Amino acid sequence: MARLKGKAVVAQSGGPTAVINASACGVIQTALKNSGVFTGVYGALNGIVGVLTEEMFDLGKEDPREIDRLKRSPSAALGSCRHKLKSLDKDRTDYERILEVFQAHDIRYFFYIGGNDSMDTAAKLGRLAREVDYEMIAVGVPKTIDNDLAYTDHCPGFGSVAKFNATSVMEAGRDTEALYTHDTCTVQEIMGRNAGWITAATGLARRVPEDAPHIILLPEVTFTLEKFVADVRQCLKDFKRCFVAAGEGVKTADGKYLGEAGGSFGKDSFGHAQLGGAADTIRAIIEKEVGVKCRVNRAGTAQRNAMHFASRTDVQEAYLVGAKAVEAAMKGVNGMMVTLERTGSGDKYGVSTGLVELEKVANGEKFVPKEFIGADGISVTDAFRAYAAPLLRGEAEIEIGPDGLPIYARLAKHRVARKTGKEYRI
Amino acid sequence: MARLKGKAVVAQSGGPTAVINASACGVIQTALKNSGVFTGVYGALNGIVGVLTEEMFDLGKEDPREIDRLKRSPSAALGSCRHKLKSLDKDRTDYERILEVFQAHDIRYFFYIGGNDSMDTAAKLGRLAREVDYEMIAVGVPKTIDNDLAYTDHCPGFGSVAKFNATSVMEAGRDTEALYTHDTCTVQEIMGRNAGWITAATGLARRVPEDAPHIILLPEVTFTLEKFVADVRQCLKDFKRCFVAAGEGVKTADGKYLGEAGGSFGKDSFGHAQLGGAADTIRAIIEKEVGVKCRVNRAGTAQRNAMHFASRTDVQEAYLVGAKAVEAAMKGVNGMMVTLERTGSGDKYGVSTGLVELEKVANGEKFVPKEFIGADGISVTDAFRAYAAPLLRGEAEIEIGPDGLPIYARLAKHRVARKTGKEYRI
Repeated sequence: MARLKGKAVVAQSGGPTAVINASACGVIQTALKNSGVFTGVYGALNGIVGVLTEEMFDLGKEDPREIDRLKRSPSAALGSCRHKLKSLDKDRTDYERILEVFQAHDIRYFFYIGGNDSMDTAAKLGRLAREVDYEMIAVGVPKTIDNDLAYTDHCPGFGSVAKFNATSVMEAGRDTEALYTHDTCTVQEIMGRNAGWITAATGLARRVPEDAPHIILLPEVTFTLEKFVADVRQCLKDFKRCFVAAGEGVKTADGKYLGEAGGSFGKDSFGHAQLGGAADTIRAIIEKEVGVKCRVNRAGTAQRNAMHFASRTDVQEAYLVGAKAVEAAMKGVNGMMVTLERTGSGDKYGVSTGLVELEKVANGEKFVPKEFIGADGISVTDAFRAYAAPLLRGEAEIEIGPDGLPIYARLAKHRVARKTGKEYRI
Repeated sequence: MARLKGKAVVAQSGGPTAVINASACGVIQTALKNSGVFTGVYGALNGIVGVLTEEMFDLGKEDPREIDRLKRSPSAALGSCRHKLKSLDKDRTDYERILEVFQAHDIRYFFYIGGNDSMDTAAKLGRLAREVDYEMIAVGVPKTIDNDLAYTDHCPGFGSVAKFNATSVMEAGRDTEALYTHDTCTVQEIMGRNAGWITAATGLARRVPEDAPHIILLPEVTFTLEKFVADVRQCLKDFKRCFVAAGEGVKTADGKYLGEAGGSFGKDSFGHAQLGGAADTIRAIIEKEVGVKCRVNRAGTAQRNAMHFASRTDVQEAYLVGAKAVEAAMKGVNGMMVTLERTGSGDKYGVSTGLVELEKVANGEKFVPKEFIGADGISVTDAFRAYAAPLLRGEAEIEIGPDGLPIYARLAKHRVARKTGKEYRI
């Protein structure tokens, strides 16, 4: 089979992570090295949106040192998006526009770094391309701090956000401990709308029972007022303090988020907590029902970009899945996402990569399984520790300026001239 | 003059920092090395409270490696407190109790690591001791993330919280940038109730105009709705996004905190924002007045304990002031606090230590001066950058376990037997 020649486009999608740029770097450096196959390597501005609007830049014109610096830079340097394409059956306009842009620029390779939705987009695009007989290859690169993609042992982005949050909980836990004569409870809100992987990972910080977090609230475990209040009271009795790591997606039995509407504990029961996140509701509950002061910590978007203490393992694996996506594409692999497969545990931890159909990933979602959650519903098991710990190992290398702060990449983004002669409004 | 011999007590007070343990380590290691002077080195549990309740532990019995690990451990390992002693004129009970405990244990040296209030306590204690003719020496060790102590160039604790927050703003700023098609504004709330030093330091993250933070809100600059809204609008026009670093102590013209009562913008104008912090009020203002989505990040207590990315300069200086306090005490210095004096700037930055009367420090407070604040009221000047940057330099060494997380000290706290035979309730 003659190898498909043409340009490659790489794009980033969804919430940024500490290592999504490392994956982009893996794609870009590997593609640039293979100029016999890839006649150009373009970046799309803000994910698929940049393809639709034909806003792309030539990554071959970037300073190679700046491309290399992507390995050590958080967030999405190409720009990200949350644009969800319509179902192919309902409205083909967006997909046809993408193919129009691809054809105009002779783009034959599409590397999409993202989560379920991105894999869905890439899969549908590939399907339409086959229908209209446009020869192209689409390969997915996994990315999500949430660690909720199915068919891969874990997701690049998770190890770093887990390492930062577990460390942050450990550190803030020491604060609560030092000042227990003053502040008795702290609740730290952790990202993860549906799956509780990141919140669970804060459990690694608890090496001995007195360590924070004493109570872990996962979206996978239904929140009940009575049990929570009893758990807090018991914790205060045991340790004179209580540190709660709360997943932002914690829900009550009726399926309501604790954050958005105060769950079942609306305005009437707990003031106006419904305007904040899960942690605000939990603080209101602790202050009203237990009667002790409670502080709220919420790193917000800072947590998923905490490159300054990212996991070296995570950075290396993020680069690996990017590079492997290009290698697979060069072998003619199409419509697949690169996966991580664990080859050993503990000190022998390692990974190899595999491949899975984009369609499968698009429709899968992986929650924290029962065997990883303690019988008390508020802790993690040794099996979870064994799963998670290797993913947090090692500290990512970063560059630091004379002002003591990191130096992160900023691409020049040399624009590629438009060829379709159309404005496309999304 | 015959050198005073007796036991030493070291205590920590106020909000924890990344490096208050490094100061304790400087005190403890230097005192333990001079056993000819210090017949014992005790730690007080939870600051002055532990002296009042006679809950002290023998630091000489700790594993020396654990003492050394204090240099690399955040929060207050001895326990801290927010207990404020009454005025000496009004009620001498607490002070007399302290002297009773000191006498019972032959404690002749008191090293108090803290801010204004702690220096006030130490000063008053020294005054009473002279009155009742109990020979003792009290020396203060500066500590506060707020950097608001007068008579010292800067305060140990500031460099580290500044480094973490500036980095965190830089990282979260990249998130806002990557997703500007989705989230347009982010406000990150930074500690500092009265003085805006830490918030100002986030300005170091803005190396070029497009970098976050675009708007810095300091307690030193009165917040007005009209100007703020205009500033946000201009920023959105310039950069398509706006990142606000907001000091928790930002106030409106009537002197009200923006956080506690929504400032002048109470319930009626901006929903129920008054229940949150300054950032919640600012978010409400942006969403209502500017009409764009705004996210809130608030690291809370995690920021002041962020040892995982503490400033090496800060750690070294924190240790230095602790060690110097003991050396000064051994020379008979009494009723003074150790200060840091800058000996050079830029690449030639360095410090020497000085001494200042505790009373002076107790009544001083240092705000961000006009020459450090940009003419627009929402930025910092090059003079501030030159002042702050050296304090953030270098990364503190920490130990990391096989689980990828830091290993922080935990003292055994071998209790000293009570001698006064009294329960003292505070």
